[in-house]
Amino acid sequence: MTGRFPSPPSRDRVRPDVAVVGAGPIGLSIAWRCAARGLRVVVHDPAPGSGASAVAAGMLSPVAEAYFGERQLTALLLASAERWPGFAAELTEVTGVDIGYRTEGTLMVGLTGDDLAEARRLWAYQQGLGLPVTPLRPSELRDREPSLAPRVRGGALAPTDHQVDPRLLVPALRAAAQQAGAVLVSQAVRRLSDVDARVTVVAAGCGAAALTGLPVRPVKGQILRLRAPDGGAPGFRHVIRGYADGEPVYLVPRVDGEVVLGATVEERADTTVTAGAVQRLLRAGVDLLPELAEYDLVEAVAGLRPGTPDNAPILGPLPGRPDVLVATGHHRHGIVLAPITADLIADLVLDGVSDPLLAPFRADRFLGLTPGGSPDRSTEGDQWS
Amino acid sequence: MTGRFPSPPSRDRVRPDVAVVGAGPIGLSIAWRCAARGLRVVVHDPAPGSGASAVAAGMLSPVAEAYFGERQLTALLLASAERWPGFAAELTEVTGVDIGYRTEGTLMVGLTGDDLAEARRLWAYQQGLGLPVTPLRPSELRDREPSLAPRVRGGALAPTDHQVDPRLLVPALRAAAQQAGAVLVSQAVRRLSDVDARVTVVAAGCGAAALTGLPVRPVKGQILRLRAPDGGAPGFRHVIRGYADGEPVYLVPRVDGEVVLGATVEERADTTVTAGAVQRLLRAGVDLLPELAEYDLVEAVAGLRPGTPDNAPILGPLPGRPDVLVATGHHRHGIVLAPITADLIADLVLDGVSDPLLAPFRADRFLGLTPGGSPDRSTEGDQWS
Repeated sequence: MTGRFPSPPSRDRVRPDVAVVGAGPIGLSIAWRCAARGLRVVVHDPAPGSGASAVAAGMLSPVAEAYFGERQLTALLLASAERWPGFAAELTEVTGVDIGYRTEGTLMVGLTGDDLAEARRLWAYQQGLGLPVTPLRPSELRDREPSLAPRVRGGALAPTDHQVDPRLLVPALRAAAQQAGAVLVSQAVRRLSDVDARVTVVAAGCGAAALTGLPVRPVKGQILRLRAPDGGAPGFRHVIRGYADGEPVYLVPRVDGEVVLGATVEERADTTVTAGAVQRLLRAGVDLLPELAEYDLVEAVAGLRPGTPDNAPILGPLPGRPDVLVATGHHRHGIVLAPITADLIADLVLDGVSDPLLAPFRADRFLGLTPGGSPDRSTEGDQWS
Repeated sequence: MTGRFPSPPSRDRVRPDVAVVGAGPIGLSIAWRCAARGLRVVVHDPAPGSGASAVAAGMLSPVAEAYFGERQLTALLLASAERWPGFAAELTEVTGVDIGYRTEGTLMVGLTGDDLAEARRLWAYQQGLGLPVTPLRPSELRDREPSLAPRVRGGALAPTDHQVDPRLLVPALRAAAQQAGAVLVSQAVRRLSDVDARVTVVAAGCGAAALTGLPVRPVKGQILRLRAPDGGAPGFRHVIRGYADGEPVYLVPRVDGEVVLGATVEERADTTVTAGAVQRLLRAGVDLLPELAEYDLVEAVAGLRPGTPDNAPILGPLPGRPDVLVATGHHRHGIVLAPITADLIADLVLDGVSDPLLAPFRADRFLGLTPGGSPDRSTEGDQWS
């Protein structure tokens, strides 16, 4: 065995091998993977699953979310999405919990001619990366989803973009982690010295900023949950993403009749639900799928995603603290990135080996940035020394 | 003393003089007035204030709601609104409770040219009845409410249309009734024989249909509650009613920062909140007052108003049962009609004298109608015999 963090697992009954700060999908996945590989794991969180994941839609969309200028992130998203079928199957096998993993694929649509023009530029970029994006003729689009509004001008299929239900996923991850031997402690961690372990993994979402000084900022998202009338299933099967008069929107149908309609991306740190955001989301959703007007509106909620200055995650050692690993800043991608984050952080803990995929996501790329996200020369060179 | 119902109040400790079925604003107002005049009153309701009043906005708008073809109802609304200042003052005096009675008046507006044309027809009708409606020039409108959208084409002022907060009103009425000696019993009344009193007053809202066989139907209303940001007051003082691209909408500002935005009128008996209704209400509200987009959306709720075949209330004896008085079917007017309903029903109980204002609202106008509201010859002549 080589690496910074000695294996085999310690038999020390007092000091755990790994302390994970944060019991969201990232922290719990890491805890599960580490515990399953024989490490003594303690997870600290006063309110497991109460962060961004409670609000997340659960799209596993590396193709539809392959945006201009994010090639390294896209590679990570694709690599994690590839692990999702096995991750989901293993999780259901060990816990017996159905986590709502669905593989019908994602339809990307444009409502107006302008929306479609914008969408087509993105589809061409995604195809240029070699990703599976199939433009559909209007008749093909309506064959797949007859409920789409007649106004919808065009669309494309991303068959490998799937979905999972985060509100089923998090309890399943918690059960899996505990079955593997991880211990959950209902305790807030205010500073890194509050925990004592050979390795500390900070998977605290937005809370990572205060713990590490890294530039993680809250990015507000408002999201709605609708329900098909009379206990029925939604009248569509695919995840539908698109632009509606310039408003980006997505619709995620669940087998139990729920439809998640989201989401705003706002540079604000409050969690109030605002009239304007709800109106814009509903308008866009109803414009794409008119039947939504008759759905029950059962929840309107806001959450805070952990964002970073380049909106990509931070995965790896905290500069100056080789005993502290960071796994946060997943922004809009916390669900899809859970499997690869868990596997590669567990590799780091056990073997000290950093997968090449992690190289672009090291914390030290932000050296010289303040926690607020802007360069601050006065701290450069000593903040993480 | 003359009349069907003997006074002075009975000293009988077992049998009350009056059993009121329903502890909404109508039932509680009647109970208060009867108890204050010395009668022994029992009010039956398993969930006081849980009906339409919990959802109501509390507009006292006989002028703005003076619609074509409803002259008798308008007369009743006006007569009740005249009693509101004294009713509110007396209620606050005896209970010490502020019920949110506000007298800034109501602005009626039209967003588009079409909306304004429709509004002007109504204002002309209202003026023709001699009601205080003052059309305003655009500059006058904006002097009164600078927050109105620049798009709003025109408006008029109804200075005597006021407001009250139903969620403060109902607890105050309950306290007043109890202070006057009325006894509240947390009990559902399934049939008239469940209660024993000299006189039974059915003020059970939609529940009156099952108790009396009268054609009272639920009329669904969806309503939103917003809140001005950061604990501030709304940026407008008047009740604002209007049409926004054909959508009728109203906005009621409260001193505590709440704004009630309503309401749909739907011939449905469910209380689900639907995506389409919320979207239409928000769109109309934001179109009239753009600042609402930044307000918190704190509640979306639906209630059931008690409607009748002519949408006017039923006030008076149940045909064939002179010991049963009915006070229901107040539809969209339950709050404004509470004072006059209470006073005139109390007169009926105590003196057996029916005020001429009540003549158009007798229950026997629906003889021959089934509870569903349509004529049914098979029961004519015996249903209420």
